[in-house]
Amino acid sequence: MKLTGKQLLGNTWSQKGQRTFQGLQASNGEAIETFFYEATTEEVDEAMRLAQQAFSPYRKLSNAKRAEFLLAISDELVALGDSLIHMACLETGLPEARITGERGRTTGQIKAFADFILGDWTREIHDPAQPERQPLPKPDLFQKNIPLGPTVVFGASNFPLAFSVAGGDTMSALAAGCPVVFKAHPAHPNTCEMVGYAIQQAAQKTGMPEGVFSMVHATSNDIGGYLVQHPICQALAFTGSFRGGKALYDLAVRRPIPIPVYAEMGSINPVVFMPEKLKNNAESLADACSQSVCLGVGQFCTNPGLLLILKENEDFLGMLAARLDQQALGTFLTPGIKKAFISACEHLSKQVGVQTLTSKAIPAPSLFSASTHTARKNSSILEEVFGPSTLAIIADDMEDLIAFIGDLPGQLTATLHGESQELQQNPDLIDALSQKVGRILLNGFPTGVEVSKAMVHGGPFPSTTDSRSTSVGTQAIYRFTRPICFQNFPSELIP
Amino acid sequence: MKLTGKQLLGNTWSQKGQRTFQGLQASNGEAIETFFYEATTEEVDEAMRLAQQAFSPYRKLSNAKRAEFLLAISDELVALGDSLIHMACLETGLPEARITGERGRTTGQIKAFADFILGDWTREIHDPAQPERQPLPKPDLFQKNIPLGPTVVFGASNFPLAFSVAGGDTMSALAAGCPVVFKAHPAHPNTCEMVGYAIQQAAQKTGMPEGVFSMVHATSNDIGGYLVQHPICQALAFTGSFRGGKALYDLAVRRPIPIPVYAEMGSINPVVFMPEKLKNNAESLADACSQSVCLGVGQFCTNPGLLLILKENEDFLGMLAARLDQQALGTFLTPGIKKAFISACEHLSKQVGVQTLTSKAIPAPSLFSASTHTARKNSSILEEVFGPSTLAIIADDMEDLIAFIGDLPGQLTATLHGESQELQQNPDLIDALSQKVGRILLNGFPTGVEVSKAMVHGGPFPSTTDSRSTSVGTQAIYRFTRPICFQNFPSELIP
Repeated sequence: MKLTGKQLLGNTWSQKGQRTFQGLQASNGEAIETFFYEATTEEVDEAMRLAQQAFSPYRKLSNAKRAEFLLAISDELVALGDSLIHMACLETGLPEARITGERGRTTGQIKAFADFILGDWTREIHDPAQPERQPLPKPDLFQKNIPLGPTVVFGASNFPLAFSVAGGDTMSALAAGCPVVFKAHPAHPNTCEMVGYAIQQAAQKTGMPEGVFSMVHATSNDIGGYLVQHPICQALAFTGSFRGGKALYDLAVRRPIPIPVYAEMGSINPVVFMPEKLKNNAESLADACSQSVCLGVGQFCTNPGLLLILKENEDFLGMLAARLDQQALGTFLTPGIKKAFISACEHLSKQVGVQTLTSKAIPAPSLFSASTHTARKNSSILEEVFGPSTLAIIADDMEDLIAFIGDLPGQLTATLHGESQELQQNPDLIDALSQKVGRILLNGFPTGVEVSKAMVHGGPFPSTTDSRSTSVGTQAIYRFTRPICFQNFPSELIP
Repeated sequence: MKLTGKQLLGNTWSQKGQRTFQGLQASNGEAIETFFYEATTEEVDEAMRLAQQAFSPYRKLSNAKRAEFLLAISDELVALGDSLIHMACLETGLPEARITGERGRTTGQIKAFADFILGDWTREIHDPAQPERQPLPKPDLFQKNIPLGPTVVFGASNFPLAFSVAGGDTMSALAAGCPVVFKAHPAHPNTCEMVGYAIQQAAQKTGMPEGVFSMVHATSNDIGGYLVQHPICQALAFTGSFRGGKALYDLAVRRPIPIPVYAEMGSINPVVFMPEKLKNNAESLADACSQSVCLGVGQFCTNPGLLLILKENEDFLGMLAARLDQQALGTFLTPGIKKAFISACEHLSKQVGVQTLTSKAIPAPSLFSASTHTARKNSSILEEVFGPSTLAIIADDMEDLIAFIGDLPGQLTATLHGESQELQQNPDLIDALSQKVGRILLNGFPTGVEVSKAMVHGGPFPSTTDSRSTSVGTQAIYRFTRPICFQNFPSELIP
């Protein structure tokens, strides 16, 4: 398909601005053909106006009709065929197998939401009337969830399909009955346009109201801020950096009418290795850990960036460093991410008390180590390094390790590697970890987030701005709904 | 019981400050015996420290044990007997029958939460492993809700029992497993101390960890702000004015680690009277409406402060005004509330295009009227008047009325009085109202909020700061929880 570089406003491809940018090949930084136009505020106004206009007819559609729309998006996505795969590979540097797998994940997610809304998903609660109750009759009360309204979604750079245009945020909002205005990610604008086109085709083919989906391009923060502050916007979903997510959160809560913000902003995902487990499984754990650290060039929000071990197990780190030295670096998503990775690794390597255990020159898969004492004195070493790097923190003993966990900021995940007995003997360790995270794993690695009704991909601040939610799995839909109670309404009058 | 006027910090009655204030008799403004000490920041620190310390043991208690604590609070509340009733009447000016009824509501709420946590309340979701799945085995995933942590609760002046010390906010947080630090309301400090004592007795008798509940007194906003910004505070519940709730919200979202804020800030609760219904029921509607407007001296967050009718039904307002003229005014909760009521009524009566339809001198139960055109030009007339007053807005026709509703800010409730046929002919009216509110009622009045699993006492901003929640009914518990996912955990290791 021939790409336009324009904004998708309902069914119209619009170009009002003059400033342009291009997508870049991740492997060599060369520009890709199409020039993308920066959206203007007028174009954002139009996208929001269309979303507002679409909201009323869209929320009144049957769940079956909305599910049909979702599944049509999946079909259109698949219909883009190899051209989508190739473009996503070109823009992100991720290998074809990964992108093909991610497409399967994306269509799987869409199907999961479509299935979910075909069931009893609105959390209906009925409390029947008791007309004979004294002194006052009890009314009939019926509670259900309804959609919040037009939603703005910012996609992530690291999952060009699964957390982007037709990713979980867009799909959960659409499933809930909320029109979506999507802010395309400038790290893969060509991929975005292709997927945006697929959604627009699906919307038209299934007779959706115009404006149920729009997409704007921008490299500037101004347009992002304008979107979030737009009076029509009723909710915000974001996946990306702490800096970006927090800036949008700050704008959203300072609006005259504040809105819910679901910003997933990263995490260092502590992994605890317990002594007995290490005694029995050091080699296989070193293998699996090195692979998890390097998966997707370490560019996962669930990347294990913090390993916690006892002093007595320090040997394990040598083994792990050797494994990491054998891993290839891979291609970063963008030159900016690569640069930030180099700078973060260099920062770490220069800190007093931090040892560099891997031997290749930066940038390479890297392992650093420090004691809990060093980390307490210098919390900068605990900042997320986006890429294939991890920091091992060495605790004096289990008590020191648990105390250290107690001082960690909120995380998406925590992982425990332990044998039954040592786990049972340390309930305080499990309890301490569970207080910090949205997901806690036993004897696995946090990368590879299962799409499931039971998944929680979220966690206490600063991993997200709303620990009461998940951005993966079917429960993600409730980020975009609110409960309403109908009192003494006959069912035929309930919208 | 002899009251101390001190802060309740865990099991200790503390007095470190020197500044004092007294509770006042609502009827005559005379001071009541006990001097209450303003809490110091050190005392708040101690309350929060104790809450933090209590959180770990408290969250690990069985639901049965927590339910026992809740029911013991109810018992202790009842054990205070008439002295509590008399004190609440003295401080609020509310009649004995109302306060006795409110005590029943309060103990009923407590029992409802106790029952609720004895059932399956943590929203558990289990998605079993599929070890044989290709290419990757599917992990076992188990989701449940866990408590957020120490919670600060600000009580309301208008429900000295049901929305105060042992009211729905405190009880839902305690039921969820969150220790509570309660900010006593200076409009009824003596009642607060009595109920605080009851909770402390219940905590000791059922062996709760010290610090599960503390209470501080303050008349200054500084201590309120200090509580909300305290690093240990993990959630905030508030019932009161827009000004107060919004100020606390602004502090909470600007914290280094923002926290959820559940502020219920008032509402004008539109009531629509449709033509056919009025034709058949004008007299009984005027009766019921005048009673609802005057219930509790109009000091309800669900008070019907906005009546919507068509021009053709203007006659109804004369009938309603006559009924309101027959209603007694009653005693306001505080001199400040009375003064604000007078000033708001005077403001309304002076606005261009606003008619005063009741005939008694302000302060009295009052009915004002204006056209939709006037209200569009002067939105100040739509501000909440806390007290027995209501404003009728007269629409040209149904289209004008629906458009007017579309421009209203968020509300706790909306009410429709209509006959079947006219309701069925106006689905857009029901749809428009449902977009604005947390609860929509048919052929009733919004005062008298049923405590039910299906209730929603909440609504879009500015009626609350979080439309995704309810502060009445058992679902209120989820304001103080977040989901966590355990991956591949044997059940015996899940805390």
